[in-house]
Amino acid sequence: MPADDDTTGPGFPTVTVVGGGQLARMMAPAAVGLGVRLRVLAERDDDSAALVAPHELGAADDTAAVLRAARGAAVVTFDHEHVPGDVLAALEDAGAVVRPAPGALRHAQDKLVMRRALAALGLPVPAWDAVADLDALRAFADAHGGRAVLKTPRGGYDGKGVLVLSTASDDGWDTAQEWFDRGTFPALLAEEVVPFVRELAVLVARSAMGQVALWPVAQTLQVDGVCREVVAPAPGLDEDLAGVAATTAARIAGALDVTGVMAVEGFEVAGPDGPRFVVNELAMRPHNSGHWTIDGSVTSQFEQHLRAVLDLPLGDVRARDRWTVMVNVLGGEHPDLYSSYLHVMAHDPAVKVHLYGKAVRPGRKIGHVTVSGDDLDDLLERARHAAGYIRGEITE
Amino acid sequence: MPADDDTTGPGFPTVTVVGGGQLARMMAPAAVGLGVRLRVLAERDDDSAALVAPHELGAADDTAAVLRAARGAAVVTFDHEHVPGDVLAALEDAGAVVRPAPGALRHAQDKLVMRRALAALGLPVPAWDAVADLDALRAFADAHGGRAVLKTPRGGYDGKGVLVLSTASDDGWDTAQEWFDRGTFPALLAEEVVPFVRELAVLVARSAMGQVALWPVAQTLQVDGVCREVVAPAPGLDEDLAGVAATTAARIAGALDVTGVMAVEGFEVAGPDGPRFVVNELAMRPHNSGHWTIDGSVTSQFEQHLRAVLDLPLGDVRARDRWTVMVNVLGGEHPDLYSSYLHVMAHDPAVKVHLYGKAVRPGRKIGHVTVSGDDLDDLLERARHAAGYIRGEITE
Repeated sequence: MPADDDTTGPGFPTVTVVGGGQLARMMAPAAVGLGVRLRVLAERDDDSAALVAPHELGAADDTAAVLRAARGAAVVTFDHEHVPGDVLAALEDAGAVVRPAPGALRHAQDKLVMRRALAALGLPVPAWDAVADLDALRAFADAHGGRAVLKTPRGGYDGKGVLVLSTASDDGWDTAQEWFDRGTFPALLAEEVVPFVRELAVLVARSAMGQVALWPVAQTLQVDGVCREVVAPAPGLDEDLAGVAATTAARIAGALDVTGVMAVEGFEVAGPDGPRFVVNELAMRPHNSGHWTIDGSVTSQFEQHLRAVLDLPLGDVRARDRWTVMVNVLGGEHPDLYSSYLHVMAHDPAVKVHLYGKAVRPGRKIGHVTVSGDDLDDLLERARHAAGYIRGEITE
Repeated sequence: MPADDDTTGPGFPTVTVVGGGQLARMMAPAAVGLGVRLRVLAERDDDSAALVAPHELGAADDTAAVLRAARGAAVVTFDHEHVPGDVLAALEDAGAVVRPAPGALRHAQDKLVMRRALAALGLPVPAWDAVADLDALRAFADAHGGRAVLKTPRGGYDGKGVLVLSTASDDGWDTAQEWFDRGTFPALLAEEVVPFVRELAVLVARSAMGQVALWPVAQTLQVDGVCREVVAPAPGLDEDLAGVAATTAARIAGALDVTGVMAVEGFEVAGPDGPRFVVNELAMRPHNSGHWTIDGSVTSQFEQHLRAVLDLPLGDVRARDRWTVMVNVLGGEHPDLYSSYLHVMAHDPAVKVHLYGKAVRPGRKIGHVTVSGDDLDDLLERARHAAGYIRGEITE
């Protein structure tokens, strides 16, 4: 695309982000520091990112809107994976630089494509199969201890599009049948239920020129498929396992030619020869498991994503404190957050509160809190208290 | 003013900032985290802050524009002191909450008002007098070792509106005569030339409810009246002197009823009874001497200013590392910064580069760099190198 005059000082580029959620929103402060311009494609003026950054209105599947938002931008990137292939193709046809490139992005868009690619690389993944009907799913479960995880290849997030099934119970099988009947996908993804010790996330950035940076491996806790809290670095992580997890993430980034930040979510599994790392999911964008880096690392995942997609040299990914704890603030029953937010600030001046400007709905991610220091138990207690208080589930 | 629906989630306020420079710009990332809205009054769409924040167009002395920008905002604050009294009065008449209040702000607007107030408080200030003509100025200089600093009461910044004069030289006396002849002010401010050991800056925040927070005292270096570099905390600062400087700043904030961030710039002066702190200037807004807090403190001066004017509880002002060094990037001869900026990122991934989106003009503040760690000499060298390289004065 031809450069327009929409640059910050001579030679400074514009980045277009498709998607107006909190991930795009949190790129805005990073862009301010870097002196680059951000332009967001948001569906509404009051979308999380549209509240704080210049934006175009439109949906991610509206080719004309995406092209409009991309005009004059040095690079187009994403805050979610739900951008149709024909829109990505139209962007490339128009000469836009798309990062991560569509060929990489499809591994984060389609879980079957991802599983096949990781298996082809010989990387440790859960036992899996592509299943086209309920019989195949039951057979898979029978072969894996009577349990299975069923995932739609596309469109899932935060526990949506995921079912955990047991042959010993009727729960969920009706829904599984509905998913097959719907016929959206030729096959769904069946996976074993991994008997993990804990969940880990490896955050990696890879720039267009191939520079790679890896933050310390973090421990994540999911509740009902939604990220609840993250501790970085993962406490007591076996050094060899940390190395394997990092190498695995770097290898995926290179092999799939990823540009930008990628989160590799995985499991720590106990084994006779010591702990193992098993890859679960990939996200090719800044990720909830990396929010701790805003306050906890020299370079945040949001700044790094912009640097990577702009092919700028990557920043230092060192943790600034011994421990950083991030706890998500999920919407509760109380729509008015302001008084509880005030209380949390008064109660603990060192807690960093991040709110996304989103209306409260039960279970919705509306913000997060971060606290850093030396005493992990203390940090966990303080971060959980702050998040619970803002949400309204703690009142003293 | 009546609340409008321009709020981030129920109950979340909007802050209007009069002025579109880099200080307003750097409030934008803080507002994103806090979940509050920022609205800037800028003169042009490509003003530093207007590039990154929702804005109204207009000048700070245009009452209608200021009132338009203030509509629906919970509070109106400033990124500079050059707002006329009648505009401030119009804001208050319209029911706007103005912080700092005009009664406090005039001490930062008018150096004679400030000197009189500090002298009335019995605080240590340089010897000074209000002088109405060249004869009075010469008499003042004769009484103070043959030298004097002449300042216009209003409108000065970054060395503008300041003359250093010696009775042993003709330099500057013609300009002094012009200032008197111009008749803008009934009197100008004459001050002794303080024989300082170094310059110090005390950054204090005071909220509307009177909560006060003081960052560690910083050492500042001015070259030609422009801030060049800041080290926090001030190396080797006498503990008692640090206490006196902090107490002085807190006392000024309370006595003048300041709301928001205030920088007290002062001198460390050697004396027979140990070092002394002498107050030089006040700024009632985030200040260049506090830019180190963005990367170097748990709470940045920009976040704290928003918290203070919104009457939110103040954040932790602890330094995150033993030393933080901030060096300003001043415009040089090369208008294209991008390639040198790239080089600096590659050279030192831990340097935080902040650019303001301003076109390059020689001597203009166009950005700053910050680096934190344990080895002060190393940090100074790295920060100076990065700033010099971006500016184009170092090429290897």
